[in-house]
Amino acid sequence: MNELQLKGAKAKEIAVFLRKVSSGEKNKVLVRAADLLLEKQNAIITANKADQKNAAANGISGPLLDRLVLNESRIQGMAEGLKEIAALSDPVGEILQMEKRPNGLVIGTQRVPMGVIGIIFESRPNVTVDAFGLCLKTGSASILRGGKEAIQTNLTLEKILQQALAENGFPAESVQIVKDTSRESARELMKLNEYLDLLIPRGGAGLIRTVVENSTVPVIETGVGNCHIYVDDSANLEMAANITINAKTQRPGVCNAAESLVIHSDIAGQFIPVVCEHLKEKNVEIRGDETVLKYFPEAKKATEEDWGTEYLDLIISVNVVNSLDEAIKHVSKYSTKHSESIITENYTHAQRFLNEIDSAAVYVNASTRFTDGYEFGFGAEIGISTQKLHARGPMGLKELTTTKYIIYGQGQTREG
Amino acid sequence: MNELQLKGAKAKEIAVFLRKVSSGEKNKVLVRAADLLLEKQNAIITANKADQKNAAANGISGPLLDRLVLNESRIQGMAEGLKEIAALSDPVGEILQMEKRPNGLVIGTQRVPMGVIGIIFESRPNVTVDAFGLCLKTGSASILRGGKEAIQTNLTLEKILQQALAENGFPAESVQIVKDTSRESARELMKLNEYLDLLIPRGGAGLIRTVVENSTVPVIETGVGNCHIYVDDSANLEMAANITINAKTQRPGVCNAAESLVIHSDIAGQFIPVVCEHLKEKNVEIRGDETVLKYFPEAKKATEEDWGTEYLDLIISVNVVNSLDEAIKHVSKYSTKHSESIITENYTHAQRFLNEIDSAAVYVNASTRFTDGYEFGFGAEIGISTQKLHARGPMGLKELTTTKYIIYGQGQTREG
Repeated sequence: MNELQLKGAKAKEIAVFLRKVSSGEKNKVLVRAADLLLEKQNAIITANKADQKNAAANGISGPLLDRLVLNESRIQGMAEGLKEIAALSDPVGEILQMEKRPNGLVIGTQRVPMGVIGIIFESRPNVTVDAFGLCLKTGSASILRGGKEAIQTNLTLEKILQQALAENGFPAESVQIVKDTSRESARELMKLNEYLDLLIPRGGAGLIRTVVENSTVPVIETGVGNCHIYVDDSANLEMAANITINAKTQRPGVCNAAESLVIHSDIAGQFIPVVCEHLKEKNVEIRGDETVLKYFPEAKKATEEDWGTEYLDLIISVNVVNSLDEAIKHVSKYSTKHSESIITENYTHAQRFLNEIDSAAVYVNASTRFTDGYEFGFGAEIGISTQKLHARGPMGLKELTTTKYIIYGQGQTREG
Repeated sequence: MNELQLKGAKAKEIAVFLRKVSSGEKNKVLVRAADLLLEKQNAIITANKADQKNAAANGISGPLLDRLVLNESRIQGMAEGLKEIAALSDPVGEILQMEKRPNGLVIGTQRVPMGVIGIIFESRPNVTVDAFGLCLKTGSASILRGGKEAIQTNLTLEKILQQALAENGFPAESVQIVKDTSRESARELMKLNEYLDLLIPRGGAGLIRTVVENSTVPVIETGVGNCHIYVDDSANLEMAANITINAKTQRPGVCNAAESLVIHSDIAGQFIPVVCEHLKEKNVEIRGDETVLKYFPEAKKATEEDWGTEYLDLIISVNVVNSLDEAIKHVSKYSTKHSESIITENYTHAQRFLNEIDSAAVYVNASTRFTDGYEFGFGAEIGISTQKLHARGPMGLKELTTTKYIIYGQGQTREG
C-alpha cells in the first residue's frame, strides 16, 4: 500500500474510536493543541521560514508568498480559532426527531460523525489547524493534503497536533498530513472511495474545478462567488450605493464580495454617475456596457468574459437591464450560485428575486458580504458550499456530520 | 451538441419554470398522467411486448425478463403510484428555520427544488414513471436513462407523460428519456456536471458501483444491503428466530433483507439447531462457520467471500462470535452500511450497538425489513442511501430537494 492507502486505512480504523469519544475529551485535545501551538511557535516559524525560502527560490512572491507566511500574530489567531471551536456545542449525538410508528417501532434520526474527511488545499497553513479542529470536533478523522510550498510548516503543525492528541489518549493519526505533495497524490486522493467519506477542496477556482471534475469521492464544492447586486427601479438609491460599495470594497479578495452590478434602466441615468464616482474614490475599476459608458465615460468597455469573472480584486462589471425579468435572466446566466442581492422597495420584486434566483444565499436590501458562517451565527465554517447536495451556503459544524436512523423495537417483523 | 447535451441544456432551462409552479399545478399533471397510463395501456403493452421479444431473442429470460414485463396490473400499480405521490404534501417552499440576527438581518432556510436530476436504471419500466413522479413533485426536471431492453416501453411512457405535462401548460421535456442506451451514453451522463445537479443509480450492485466509480456529477449511492442480524447472549431466542426468519425470507430479493446471521457463542448450542431448522423449512440454504456446522451439520461451510455477499436469495451466512465486541467488529468489516439489527435484552449492549454500528439504519429487536420509505412514514421513496452525504437511509421527497438561504435586510452592510 502506498502513503495514501495506508493513511486511508489508518483513518478508517481511527474513525471507529472517534465515534465513541465524548465532547469533553475532544475539547481537551483542541485546547491542548491551541496551547502547544503557542509553546512551539519558534519551531513553526523556523519551518515556515524554510518554506518561504524555497517558495521564493521557486519564484513565488507577492500575495501568493504572503499567504504562506506564519508569524506570531497568525499563530495566535490559529490557537484562538481552536479554542473557539472547543467552545462551540458539539452537534454529534443530537436526536433530530424521534417518532413512534403505528406498529410500535420508535424511529429516530441521530446526528453522527462523517467518518473520514479529506481536505485538499493550497498554501495557507492556517487551513491545516482549522480543518483539524473542525473535523476532530465533529468526530471525524482527517487527511489533509496542503500545497507543496507549505509542507515543512504543515509537517511541524502535524507533529504538534498529534502530540495534543496522544497526550489525551487519542490515536495520533486522528489527523494526518499527506507528505507526497505531487499532482499524482492529489488525483489519487480524489479516487480514494474506499476510505474517504467526503472530500472538500479549499482554495481558488482552479483547484476547486480540478477536484470537482476528477473526484469520485463525494465532494462538497465550495467558494467560487461571482456575486451580483441588482439595483431595481424602485430602489432606495442611497442604500443601493452603500451596499454596492460595501459588497465590492470592504474585502475584495473574498468569495462573498460583489463582482457585478446590474442596474434597472429607469434609474440608470440617476444612479450610475453617483455609484461609479463612489467606486472610483475607492479605486475600483469599472467595466460597463454601453449605457454605463454613456453615463460614466471613464468606465472601460466590458467584454462578454467580464460578466462571468470572479475578479477577487478592485474591479466590477456593470450592466443595465430593462426589467426585473432581464435582471433575473442575466444573474442566472452568469452567477456561480453563491450570493446575490436585490435592492428594491417593491414587495413583489423582492419576493420574485428571492424565489427565482437559484443561489445559495439570496438577499433583499443587504450586502452579499454577510454569506459567512460567523455572520450566520454558526461560529465556525469550513467553507461556503455552492452546490446543492448535503450542504448549501456557509457550512458549520453540523454540515460536517451525517445522520443515521436508530430504531427501537419490541420484536417487530414485517408482514406486507 | 449530442443528445445528452441537448437534453441537459433543455432540462436546465425548464428547471427555471419548474421552480415557479405551484403544488396544485404539479399535482394536476401527476393525476392526468395516471389517467393517461390507464387510457393508453394497450399502446404500452404493445411496446412492452416488442421489448420482451427483443430481450428473449438476446437470450434474456427468467427473473431478468420478468422485471421488464408490464401487464394491466403493473400499469394499474404505476398509475396508483402517481396518484399517491400527488396526494403527498409538497416539501418545496417550506421554511425550515428563520432567525433574526443581532444586526437585524432576518435569515431563513427554505426548501427548494434540486434543479435537474438524472436517474440511471436497468430494465424495470416502472422506475420511469416513479422517477418522473418524484422529480416533478419536487420541482425538478428529470433525465431518465433506462436499460436498452426497455427502450420501446420507455419511449411510449415518455410520450404519455409528456402529453400530461403539455396538456397542463408544462414544458413537455420536464421529463426526458435518453434514446441512446449505449454504455457511452451512460458514461457521458456521469460527467454531465454542467447540467445535472444530482445523479441517482437505481439497480443492482454492479450498476451502482459503476456509477459511483465513474461519476463526477454528485451521486447518491443507493441500495446494496449486506444486512446483519446479531443475536446477543441475552436475546429472547424466540424473538430472535422470528426476526431472523422474517428478515431473511419475507422477501429475499430486496436490499433490506438479512444476508448474514451473527450469533453469540453462549447461546449458539441452544439457538443454532432451532433457527437453522426454521430456515431449512423455508428452503434457506445455510452457509456457516465451524461452530454452526457442529450444531447443524446440514449447513454448508462458508467461505470468506460469503461474509461479504449480498445474496438477494434464499441463502444466509451464519457465524459465531465470543462477545459483543467481536460481533461489532465482524459486522463493521463486512457491512455495506445499510441495515443491521441486534436482538438483545441487555440495555448496555443495545445502546452500544446503536452507537457503534455505522450503518444507515441500526435496529434493536426488530427486522431489518423495515428500512423502507413507506415503513418509515415518508409515503414514497427513490431508494435507500447507503452513503453519508446529503441523505442516508430511505430517501423520501425531502431528500430530492435542496435548500437556500433567504435573507431579508434593511440596508445592512458589513463592517468587520
